[in-house]
This record gives sequence, C-alpha cells and structure tokens, in this order.
Amino acid sequence: MSNRKLNNYISVDCVIFGFDSEKLNVLVVDRTLKADDGSDEFSDLTLTGNHIYEDETIVEAADRILYDLTGLRNIYLEQFKTFAAPDRLKKENDRKWLLHDNRDPDKRIVSIGFFALLATQKVTLEWKGRNVRWMPVEEVGELGFDHNLILSEALVAMRNKLIHEPIGFELLPDKFTLSQLQKVYEIILDTTFDKRNFRKKVGRMKYLIPLDEKQKGVAHKPARLYMFSREVYEKTRKEILNFLV
Amino acid sequence: MSNRKLNNYISVDCVIFGFDSEKLNVLVVDRTLKADDGSDEFSDLTLTGNHIYEDETIVEAADRILYDLTGLRNIYLEQFKTFAAPDRLKKENDRKWLLHDNRDPDKRIVSIGFFALLATQKVTLEWKGRNVRWMPVEEVGELGFDHNLILSEALVAMRNKLIHEPIGFELLPDKFTLSQLQKVYEIILDTTFDKRNFRKKVGRMKYLIPLDEKQKGVAHKPARLYMFSREVYEKTRKEILNFLV
Repeated sequence: MSNRKLNNYISVDCVIFGFDSEKLNVLVVDRTLKADDGSDEFSDLTLTGNHIYEDETIVEAADRILYDLTGLRNIYLEQFKTFAAPDRLKKENDRKWLLHDNRDPDKRIVSIGFFALLATQKVTLEWKGRNVRWMPVEEVGELGFDHNLILSEALVAMRNKLIHEPIGFELLPDKFTLSQLQKVYEIILDTTFDKRNFRKKVGRMKYLIPLDEKQKGVAHKPARLYMFSREVYEKTRKEILNFLV
Repeated sequence: MSNRKLNNYISVDCVIFGFDSEKLNVLVVDRTLKADDGSDEFSDLTLTGNHIYEDETIVEAADRILYDLTGLRNIYLEQFKTFAAPDRLKKENDRKWLLHDNRDPDKRIVSIGFFALLATQKVTLEWKGRNVRWMPVEEVGELGFDHNLILSEALVAMRNKLIHEPIGFELLPDKFTLSQLQKVYEIILDTTFDKRNFRKKVGRMKYLIPLDEKQKGVAHKPARLYMFSREVYEKTRKEILNFLV
C-alpha cells in the first residue's frame, strides 16, 4: 500500500449501524491527542472514515474502510449525503488534531457520507486491533468534526429508506425470528406494532422465507427462524406509486 | 463577487429537469472550444454546474447556479449523489477544455450532484444571456465529462423519489389539470394509468386542492384546475411502512 497516495481533500465517512437485538448502535473511534508530556491533550470520539486513495473510487474507499474495521465484505452500504460546510473542521479539538497531524485545518475537505447496516454479532472488532467500539445511538454525545450532523442525517436517510424498502433485515443475523424483525422496526422507527397485525402483514412478503429450523438455546419456547431473500424481493417488487395507495 | 475565491476541487452539478406538458427535458449548456484560427476546435454539451466559493455551502452553491440560470429561487432541489471517479474528467475533449482554461486535468475534482424540478414555462432562459437550452431527455447524446452518468443517476433518483413522495407536482405550473398530472407520471415512469382509477386514487389526496377555476384558451371543454399544497402534505403524511402494505 505504501506507493498509493491519499487524496488530501476528499474523504469518506461511514456511519456503521449495528443492531444487537435490543438497540441500535453506531461504530465510533477513539480520537486521543497526546500532549508533549505524554498526558492526554484531549480524548473524544468520531465516526469511522478515511481519505480516499487517488486511484480508487469513493465506493471502493467505503468498502475498504468497512473491511478494515469489520473484516466483512458485501455489507449493506449506501451513499446518502455529502458534507462540505466551510466550518466543518473548525472546532478547537479538530484544529489541534489536524495541526498535530501536519494537516492544514483551513483546507476545505469534502466528505462523502455512507451508512452501513449489520448485526453486531457478525463482527469481531478486535481483528485488526483498531480503537473502535459500538455505542448505542441514544448515548452518543458530542463527536469530533461535524460528525453529529453526519450521524443525524444518516439516521434520517436510513429511517426514510426503511419505510420504503425492506432493509431492516440487514440489521439481523442471516436467520431470525419474527419477534426480532418486529423489534428492529419498533426500535428504529420509535414506535410499537400490534403483534398479530404485524405478522399478518409480513406474512404477505414473498421474500420473507420461513425455514424448517427453530431457535436454539433459548429459555422460552423456541420460535421459527426466517431468512430474507433479496433475490425474491428484486424479482417480485412492484414499483407502485406508494403515496397513491 | 470579485473578491470571492472559487474552490478548485469541489464542484456542484445541477441536473435541471423541466416538464413542458409533453415531455421531460433537461437543461444543457453549449461547451465550445475555439482553436487559434477562430474555428471551433470542438463543440459539445454538458449539464449545468460550477465550482463552489470558499465561503459558501454546497446547497448555497446549487441555489446560486439555479438562480443564475433560471432567475428562480425556491425551486425543488435535491442532493442525490456525489461523483469522484478517478477518470471522470479524462476524455479528450475534457482534457482540452480544462487545459485551455488553465486547469490541471489530472487534479481530482469531486462533484456533488443535485436535481431540480420545474415547469419549463416558468423559466425565461434568456434572462442573463447564458448559452443554455432545454433538450428532451430522450434526445440527449454524448455529454462532456461524466455527465451522462450524472444524468442517468439523477433519473434513477428522481423516479425512485416520485414513486414514494408527491414530487410530480413540482414539474407542473402552480395550477394544473388532472390530465396534466396523470401525464407527468406516465411520462416519467414510462407507463400508462387507467384514467378513472388514477382519478379515484388522486381524489384521496388531501393535499391536492381543487380550485374554483377552469382552464382558459383551450379548444376542448375546459377542465378544472388544481393546486398542490405542500403544507397539507407535510401535516397529513403518515410515515407508514409502505412496503408492508
């Protein structure tokens, strides 16, 4: 990799959402700047991201960042918005961080935002020893750079997509129960659904495939497992005018 | 404006769609490079766009470009995707154009794509004497830079949005007939709707307001005019799980 050159004004920020069957989390990275005496000048958190290499596309950069952090490929990934406000890197900690890294805090950096969806249990975060961890979205405080804005815009885009297309499955393990599916929608849309009504509606989805398998190792009566078939979804989707319904 | 500085690596491209009651058009600009003897070195077309000023946001840049070309403010405008492929400015004409303009064709330029929707009749293109014109989307040939890709991605994003949200109204005059409304959807989605069924469905939209006014100056029996109320739409929209319906 040493002969590849990073572009110093185009970056990709990835908002990596992970569902742990109870809550929605986001992957954050520790940003700690050491003072000359070895103490912490400051320590805060940012989203995950990186500059792009001169020879790669922005999608390739996003895939690389995701693989680097999670060890996974073919994660659900969507470009949702680009951020380039003149003051986006100008908070005090951001300036210190950039200067310490021999970068010019007054140079405008454009960042292309992607969000990714996965089940936290699929990921082994320690695989490359990066300083990252899951944090419940509800507990996220002030982040570095303009990353609070990027996170909130990612949530808006993700919720909007979730309403129109079946992407909730991406936050679950490959095999899941209907209760887990209902939980995903309830948590992310901050609502509750009537259990019978929800099951009646999802029962109509041809792309939700019941398996001849049940949960294992649960205290309660094990529930049936299901899988989502993107192939069936793509083949059966109707491009109806939903707002006319 | 002379003291404002343009950023030389961040640009905004606007795909300005205009509906003329028969077809969907896009605003294109003539790009003609003169040779030393005054003849045309080449002449082709591009979408409309510009670099951003160092002190403006990308949305402010898009608004400025739209106003500059159409004289209109508060046009429907949406950021849909960002383009930064390493080879996006490397076709022969693009290199010549950039070199002639004293720009480095090997410098990576990231372009944030917006699409805008309006009725062509609202615009007086001549207002600033720019070299722009409407072209039916179906008749667009090879464009400069990566603008064919930007146009096709804008069409995908616009159609996808049209399916889920009532943005078709933005392509019509402020007052329109139900036939005109049906035409917009038929043209853009490349389909036909049964007239009675379409009217039954749009009749349920609380945000489609019938007016006590009829068409004027038409040969046939004048039809009733309607308007779209974004205010009513925002207040009555239900964030239902459309794909569950």
